[in-house]
Amino acid sequence: MSKKLLNSVASCVDEALCGLVRANGGLSLLKGHRVVLRSDLDNLKGKVALLSGGGSGHEPAHGGYVGAGMLSAAVAGGVFASPPPASILAAVMSLHNAGASGVLLIVKNYTGDRLNFGLAAEQARNHGVTVDMVIVAEDCAFERPSKAGRRGLCGTIFIHKLAGALAEEGASLDQIVAKVTEVLKGIGTLGVSLSPCSVPGCLPSFDLPPGDMELGLGIHGEPGIKRSKVASADEVVKTMIDHMTNPDSQSHLPLKSGESVVVCVNNLGALSCLELAVVTRAAIICLEKQGLVVARVMSGSFMTSLEMAGVSLTLMQANDETLRLFDAKTGAPAWPNLGCVCASGRSHTKDPSAILQSFFSGPLSPVMRSALERVCSTLLEKQEELNALDRAAGDGDCGNTHAQAARAIQDWLQSHVVPGCPGKLLSVLAGLVQEKMGGSSGALYSLFLTAASGHVTEGHGDAAGWARAMHAGTQAMRRCVVVSLTKATLGAESTRDLTARAGRASYIAAERVTLPDPGAVAVAAIFTAVLESLKTKPACGPAG
Amino acid sequence: MSKKLLNSVASCVDEALCGLVRANGGLSLLKGHRVVLRSDLDNLKGKVALLSGGGSGHEPAHGGYVGAGMLSAAVAGGVFASPPPASILAAVMSLHNAGASGVLLIVKNYTGDRLNFGLAAEQARNHGVTVDMVIVAEDCAFERPSKAGRRGLCGTIFIHKLAGALAEEGASLDQIVAKVTEVLKGIGTLGVSLSPCSVPGCLPSFDLPPGDMELGLGIHGEPGIKRSKVASADEVVKTMIDHMTNPDSQSHLPLKSGESVVVCVNNLGALSCLELAVVTRAAIICLEKQGLVVARVMSGSFMTSLEMAGVSLTLMQANDETLRLFDAKTGAPAWPNLGCVCASGRSHTKDPSAILQSFFSGPLSPVMRSALERVCSTLLEKQEELNALDRAAGDGDCGNTHAQAARAIQDWLQSHVVPGCPGKLLSVLAGLVQEKMGGSSGALYSLFLTAASGHVTEGHGDAAGWARAMHAGTQAMRRCVVVSLTKATLGAESTRDLTARAGRASYIAAERVTLPDPGAVAVAAIFTAVLESLKTKPACGPAG
Repeated sequence: MSKKLLNSVASCVDEALCGLVRANGGLSLLKGHRVVLRSDLDNLKGKVALLSGGGSGHEPAHGGYVGAGMLSAAVAGGVFASPPPASILAAVMSLHNAGASGVLLIVKNYTGDRLNFGLAAEQARNHGVTVDMVIVAEDCAFERPSKAGRRGLCGTIFIHKLAGALAEEGASLDQIVAKVTEVLKGIGTLGVSLSPCSVPGCLPSFDLPPGDMELGLGIHGEPGIKRSKVASADEVVKTMIDHMTNPDSQSHLPLKSGESVVVCVNNLGALSCLELAVVTRAAIICLEKQGLVVARVMSGSFMTSLEMAGVSLTLMQANDETLRLFDAKTGAPAWPNLGCVCASGRSHTKDPSAILQSFFSGPLSPVMRSALERVCSTLLEKQEELNALDRAAGDGDCGNTHAQAARAIQDWLQSHVVPGCPGKLLSVLAGLVQEKMGGSSGALYSLFLTAASGHVTEGHGDAAGWARAMHAGTQAMRRCVVVSLTKATLGAESTRDLTARAGRASYIAAERVTLPDPGAVAVAAIFTAVLESLKTKPACGPAG
Repeated sequence: MSKKLLNSVASCVDEALCGLVRANGGLSLLKGHRVVLRSDLDNLKGKVALLSGGGSGHEPAHGGYVGAGMLSAAVAGGVFASPPPASILAAVMSLHNAGASGVLLIVKNYTGDRLNFGLAAEQARNHGVTVDMVIVAEDCAFERPSKAGRRGLCGTIFIHKLAGALAEEGASLDQIVAKVTEVLKGIGTLGVSLSPCSVPGCLPSFDLPPGDMELGLGIHGEPGIKRSKVASADEVVKTMIDHMTNPDSQSHLPLKSGESVVVCVNNLGALSCLELAVVTRAAIICLEKQGLVVARVMSGSFMTSLEMAGVSLTLMQANDETLRLFDAKTGAPAWPNLGCVCASGRSHTKDPSAILQSFFSGPLSPVMRSALERVCSTLLEKQEELNALDRAAGDGDCGNTHAQAARAIQDWLQSHVVPGCPGKLLSVLAGLVQEKMGGSSGALYSLFLTAASGHVTEGHGDAAGWARAMHAGTQAMRRCVVVSLTKATLGAESTRDLTARAGRASYIAAERVTLPDPGAVAVAAIFTAVLESLKTKPACGPAG
């Protein structure tokens, strides 16, 4: 039995419905029934009301699709169990009593749902309610479906959306049924899963060995059509779309090149959002390769199977009219915040501005070379000393990291013209350590150098400029992390009494730190090297 | 290594970003960088632009929050790795070049992010860009946080939303920073997890034994504060909220009774939507018990940790101004379709109409009792015969199911007045078999009886009425399932040659079915019993 965060198996469906309704002001519960209703039932007057539902465990279906422009109500059964006719009838009668001109039942093709919704429809007719029913059966898994027909899957929410938009516009029950019946012919769904799901209180619905996946299984864990090793996302998506559009299959979707489709990439439960986005990309690209125009894309958790780690693809042939209905506004909480832009055929990349390209290059000249050379050789000399200090409090690579930067600067000095403007030089060095040194040290040095560089621009490389530059560098680091590098520049020895406040060393107990901080020692060595170098070559300006 | 639906570890972040951007027309990618930008950068002219980002693996954060009224751009690092400063800078410069009056960086409090965003901010300043940075650090896990500070978690998206609404209104950078800084003091987050997650290509981030959960862990699987056995959802939520508001903790949220809060119930990845809804209910109720007013509720996947099965709660103190900004429209694809209704204090249940209460009861009278008694005794006699037939093609309980219904009708006949109107009688029987017989058989009989009942109303119990009733019942069943009960009523023997088209028997190969269908035999027995009973009591009307 899998771990679940629930109160009890018996109460989970009612509590989940309560959670949904409590969280969304537009929803209400019908007392005594597992029925979610629009709170604004008055707005149904004279319009067709839409009711859907089915077993629980497919959240946000169907309660999440209740709202203006989608369902008027949804009725839930137990987990993976059809709802009782009495509750379906109670929902229908509530919609009728609110003044709806008729009620359309949108039912997924499962024997239990067909029977129970059908029964409630008959009972409602006996009460004088105008009722009709559409069956969604868009599963593309089986090439030769049994006479029970194709299963109803995630495509159902397309019907919720299109019928909902029509109802909101004031279309009649017959008009909605006619439109939906036509649209249904152009919808297909196929799922794939890497893991089973388990009904609360039960063992997993089936077993899927490590490394295996199953194609075409149902949203209750019913058997699929094929097991295989988990392939790449691109391959899996191609297999799915090929199967869905294969004309040899009785349940295929007859898509023609040049046609527009809406695609829904549905997380069956536990797939990570990262994987879902990868699959979404694969689906768009695969459809476009087949010559299709991807008009709209939905990607998220729309019709789940509890915690099944899998994904289903639903395709819907689209024309201007279906897109208009698809794009119409809805208040249903589970409908995503979609735009109305065609995914295919738009440019989706922008070029960065040219200013960035030139940032780390530019004309260079031979100033302060010796200071830099002194810094580099000092750091290389101190490599082992710094490593030893770091082993006491960190991971022992402080010397190596600095040596890496030093060698990168040496290489660069040999192959480039060093800029005459100190600000430019510091900028270049910032880019260099950021790139070659890496890690937090690289970022910290780069931060300091970048902030400092703005204060020693062409013609401002005097002592006051350098003082401002050092101050700016320190301030910049302080803005980012609580470090005491100011103190470190005064004397690395004083860091012995400081407590590390960030980075890996912050997890080391203060008592265990009896040696000076290796980073601070390195910084002190750098400044010392610069000063000594400048004493030899006073022409360069800085006074200390 | 867990199963993943990806193409490669190396490409997954870029592909996921591509998937996000391709699916949403309002988003673009910055060429050469992992940066998601608003497609309508022109609309930033003269306004403050907002940039956030961080490691990947937290989808839909942060790219999903790019859009009018939220972020202007988001920059992604590798999975759980801070993005490089060069990409952050490229994003900032793009926003600046688009005409933004300033750029605000919204950064979660991790050393790497602070450094890299800080560095890019410095570099941008050197390019004359007006930049500021706010750090989100709202983790409530640790009572005595280290000096690295509290972690930035799901509360970040509240900042995206409020700052985004302000920027859209034309607020200045300083105004936004001031407002956000104030709001941040009133945000707190705590997570709980039932499972680890695993970075693509790596082993799970930690081990969590069966039955255990961990409280307070970070969104990268960093250690939490406490492990315990998985408790009930209500208990877990109470523990979390108690911890978050405990004044003994330095990182608590100081909530006072009567105050308003916005709550975000965030799926860390692989929790089922059913569980998430149960937790959502628990959170609302727990907060209300503490005297808080739950102003708004978000429930979904907002800041995930790959496929971690867990949930985090984020609370934000709210006043009219924050709610106005929270409710403002946004085009960001990951922002949910929320209403503007306060969750606390509204009535969220509706009473079903009175008509339903009376549906299965009403004044009854003693007509056709003997026909019914005959049906019941016949079904009880045939119990074993039906079971035996069912064992050949089904699960062997057909006789038991019918006997159950027969006994229920016998009980009812003894304790109730049987209605004189045949239509009412059939309605009552429909309710009775639906409730007591259950399953598909109960639904089918109920469906037939309900459809039939409308045609033999008071004063229409003649032969023509009954003929219409039988036809209506059969039609109703046909509308719901493809069955051949018409044939069955003609003679159960003829079902021997039919192929089962629905229900469990549809999975049995036709060759193996050599006996008549037990359900059809039962129906034939019922009709025979009625006819024989009516022959004895011709006063009752039906002619056959």
